[in-house]
Amino acid sequence: VDALVVNPGTRGGVEFVRDHPEPSPAAGELTVRVELAGICSTDLEIARGYMDFGGVPGHEFVGTVVAGSDALQGKRVVGEINCVCSACDMCRAGLGTHCRNRTVLGIAGRDGAFAQYLTLPEGNCHVVPDEVGDRQAVFVEPLAAAVQVVKQHPVDADTRVAVVGVGRLGALIAQVLALRGCRLEAIDRSPRALAFAEQRGIRTVHADEVVPQADHDLVVESTGSPAGLDLALRLVRPRGTIVLKSTYAGAAEINLAPIVVNEIRLVGNRCGPFPDALELLRAGQVEVEGLISGEYPLERGVEAFAAAANPQNVKILLRPGPAS
Amino acid sequence: VDALVVNPGTRGGVEFVRDHPEPSPAAGELTVRVELAGICSTDLEIARGYMDFGGVPGHEFVGTVVAGSDALQGKRVVGEINCVCSACDMCRAGLGTHCRNRTVLGIAGRDGAFAQYLTLPEGNCHVVPDEVGDRQAVFVEPLAAAVQVVKQHPVDADTRVAVVGVGRLGALIAQVLALRGCRLEAIDRSPRALAFAEQRGIRTVHADEVVPQADHDLVVESTGSPAGLDLALRLVRPRGTIVLKSTYAGAAEINLAPIVVNEIRLVGNRCGPFPDALELLRAGQVEVEGLISGEYPLERGVEAFAAAANPQNVKILLRPGPAS
Repeated sequence: VDALVVNPGTRGGVEFVRDHPEPSPAAGELTVRVELAGICSTDLEIARGYMDFGGVPGHEFVGTVVAGSDALQGKRVVGEINCVCSACDMCRAGLGTHCRNRTVLGIAGRDGAFAQYLTLPEGNCHVVPDEVGDRQAVFVEPLAAAVQVVKQHPVDADTRVAVVGVGRLGALIAQVLALRGCRLEAIDRSPRALAFAEQRGIRTVHADEVVPQADHDLVVESTGSPAGLDLALRLVRPRGTIVLKSTYAGAAEINLAPIVVNEIRLVGNRCGPFPDALELLRAGQVEVEGLISGEYPLERGVEAFAAAANPQNVKILLRPGPAS
Repeated sequence: VDALVVNPGTRGGVEFVRDHPEPSPAAGELTVRVELAGICSTDLEIARGYMDFGGVPGHEFVGTVVAGSDALQGKRVVGEINCVCSACDMCRAGLGTHCRNRTVLGIAGRDGAFAQYLTLPEGNCHVVPDEVGDRQAVFVEPLAAAVQVVKQHPVDADTRVAVVGVGRLGALIAQVLALRGCRLEAIDRSPRALAFAEQRGIRTVHADEVVPQADHDLVVESTGSPAGLDLALRLVRPRGTIVLKSTYAGAAEINLAPIVVNEIRLVGNRCGPFPDALELLRAGQVEVEGLISGEYPLERGVEAFAAAANPQNVKILLRPGPAS
């Protein structure tokens, strides 16, 4: 099948191939024809060697079930990316996303969505309501990750919140926080990112004009850069919380003293609930169309990755197209 | 008065002087004759330039009240180190240790304990019970900081806990955790540190023999080194907690990806409750005598700092001696 592949060890980006082996579903798995897939920062990191992943990257997708379930045959689905054993200590503790033996779609041990077909356990898949188009549904995975911030860190009208970096994932996080109602600021350098947030009624501050006062209860770091974390450490109040959303390949230089002196909580936060994200899109409460910078056929995947790495762009989509 | 001083900007360690100005108490402050003071890692960092502090360092002490309160005159006291405004948002929120306008004994804006006399607000001082000798009482400040770990992170019999680094502060933290009853491991390289923990009935593992399995609910990082944090990140389970106790001067190279992927909480933790620490010492539940590696008169302070920086030693005490 047509696919983009990453070769481990080379760190040389992605390559388009026409003869990648078609994924074969295990018992209980569906085969899904990928209609549309999104490139996220993690994919860019994976192409640079993060996770030492080899195979087909991609974990944001909407597709059509073509095999594996009579009930779901022909249905449009999105899919949770962690494929779990249901037996380890984490699974038994209800922390399936941390399963010790998991594979992760397009990230660890399992070919992903930048191909004509993928396989996923039936239990991972969620049917997409008719009201939610493909170009919205492809955002369900990152939007679920955004929802996870407020799941782990509930906010109320008095909570002072800053989102540092509202370009891509941060634009979803800021929208979810705004819906909850809190004293929210979106911080970025990009005029486009700031304008998008403002159009959504979110108060914005240009990163160069921030005067950190250590007075935010909650700061979400979604820039993926050490400079973003450094700013977050100066924005958060003593005993406040910084949520880390971005994965970095490699080490960052961090001054840890403020964490200790100000007794700050730095909390990593990853995957979230798909049903919540689907409902937000169905109800039209989160805007994603304005975040799409381009749609490429799979054979132009190398170009699409370059576009996704360009800070002028936001979300770049890939459309595998029908089997040839 | 006799004092050790740090000159800001020089990063050249401490200097013994005979003519340091005697501290003058503000309204509501006591003047305390320092009987015994302890050198901790923060003092070593301060001598290297941490906090850009200038003046007399030292914040672990036991002393005798010589002026400022008829009721406390002649009493032995220990003292909390944060001197607060009681008016800022942090003070009003009950977070006095994070007062926006605080001075901190021997750390920020206030001369400390490596001198014949110091001043502190009366409200900061706690009378030392007769059963607690000077060589125990001088540990109240770090022991309170150790107690703060279990205050912020309660443990029970099932909680899997590792303390990484049980040399100095870690030796107190491990004892406090052991008293609470939990599945505790103390990890260090030093045979002396490991032997001390074992004598206290604590299970130990040599740092070179640890096989990290990401299965600890709580890991306390008290080595003060990036390698300690790196090990902590491999010991802690997904969604587990790492408590950072050590302040570092300067930046550390940290790989942040595991924090996000495993949704780890990294929490800074600083000062703690003095009454709890005094009670633990009074009841004989925490052993500190075995942690004392030497006692120096103040005029040999430079030598004492060198001894404190020697990893063979644990706690080095300074005895200012009477006014000359």
